Amino acid sequence: MNKTHKTDTPPSLIYGVHPIIETIRAGRRKIHEVFLIKGSESEKRLRSEFETLNLNIRFMSALELDSLTRDPRNQGIAARVDPFTYCDFESDLSILKHKDRFAVLILDHIQDPNNLGNILRSACCFGIDLIILSKDRAASVTASVEKASAGSSAHVRVCRVVNLNRSIQNLKEIGSWVYGTDAKSGTNYFDADLSGKIAIVMGAEGSGIRRLVRENCDVMIKIPIIGNVPSLNVSNATTILFSETFRQVSFGSSDISGSR
Amino acid sequence: MNKTHKTDTPPSLIYGVHPIIETIRAGRRKIHEVFLIKGSESEKRLRSEFETLNLNIRFMSALELDSLTRDPRNQGIAARVDPFTYCDFESDLSILKHKDRFAVLILDHIQDPNNLGNILRSACCFGIDLIILSKDRAASVTASVEKASAGSSAHVRVCRVVNLNRSIQNLKEIGSWVYGTDAKSGTNYFDADLSGKIAIVMGAEGSGIRRLVRENCDVMIKIPIIGNVPSLNVSNATTILFSETFRQVSFGSSDISGSR
Repeated sequence: MNKTHKTDTPPSLIYGVHPIIETIRAGRRKIHEVFLIKGSESEKRLRSEFETLNLNIRFMSALELDSLTRDPRNQGIAARVDPFTYCDFESDLSILKHKDRFAVLILDHIQDPNNLGNILRSACCFGIDLIILSKDRAASVTASVEKASAGSSAHVRVCRVVNLNRSIQNLKEIGSWVYGTDAKSGTNYFDADLSGKIAIVMGAEGSGIRRLVRENCDVMIKIPIIGNVPSLNVSNATTILFSETFRQVSFGSSDISGSR
Repeated sequence: MNKTHKTDTPPSLIYGVHPIIETIRAGRRKIHEVFLIKGSESEKRLRSEFETLNLNIRFMSALELDSLTRDPRNQGIAARVDPFTYCDFESDLSILKHKDRFAVLILDHIQDPNNLGNILRSACCFGIDLIILSKDRAASVTASVEKASAGSSAHVRVCRVVNLNRSIQNLKEIGSWVYGTDAKSGTNYFDADLSGKIAIVMGAEGSGIRRLVRENCDVMIKIPIIGNVPSLNVSNATTILFSETFRQVSFGSSDISGSR
């Protein structure tokens, strides 16, 4: 069992079918109460399962639920659960240290909840070991992020740190190779060796990776695109790199030109 | 010049910095009037350029602009422009017919504007030749899609058809190989030959490709992920396939096991 931050904060709200189903499946957080709209698809689909699990169910109107979740995309279901559990960076580091390979994602101040949610979803799909967020001026794992992640937030390991550069240093000390990403310069991602102990750093929407963080990366990689157009969305760019990592690890790679 | 649908519909609204800049750059649509919040970042950045271009500028309050765009993420700027110009499938087909290679995307009833916008953005980045949407029960290119596309909608070719299966048939007749995508079964995408005349079919969020459309595909491909987790977001999945297509076309491929 990994140590996690203990908090005394009150239960938080999650909403949408997938976040609630995956929170139950993951079994990490206590579910205090489920809110359902009577007659909704969600009630028909899930009520008996909730009753079997002995969960407290409270019925409310669509209007009440919309007002509670402040998002009409709640699919007629919400729940009050323990707050999202961030893991502790140092504890996770001491576990990664003993692994032959790992893939860590470092997000340098991603702002958009939808992007963060989609990144967590992809991280779950491709078995990313740890996602590191900055504690300040960056999106954290809110109800709307959990919704955008389609419930994947329940399964991934996310930590928040004050100083990303120190975390990068710590990862290097346990043998990680740190790849920074850039829209224009660097090695093409499919020519980089992503199969060992790696950390991938993604910059914020618009501004990219900050200068000091960039200087701390071992090498820069890029996703080649055709010129003279807007850049890729950060969640899409991140997912391309995850998929290539998973491909190299699980299916081998015949195309590594030795960029390290 | 390609033939496009002529419409008598009144100008439509777009908002956000990128949609307006890219609409100007693309030069496809007349810009009737630009709306700016005085003192906003957008005004400081763009006003003199708009004046040079002799565009009509109307200043309004943040409240007025929010009410006009019905989206607070308007970045202090909106414009009344000609409606989004869908291209004509038959005309585009007659151009594709003469190409040595092309990549077409067929979206089987994608619903979410954010997903559609992000897909258009990736399609622009990777030079996809044509995106085909279904006319009914699917997201079309609205202002919020154009915003999510970061203005890429101004550069890509999008058409809407009534019958996707007929379009698939037409594409086959001009030599296209049609790849359907599935979350679980099929050839791994990196083992498929994506370098020639291809069409990729992506299914809707949740439900995937409809049965008849699936039966019309030449072969199914999948993106391998670790088991027992929610699937990838459709925009992320689409982008992975685009990037692999671009890689095979632009950088060759050493890993084609001959799935065709």
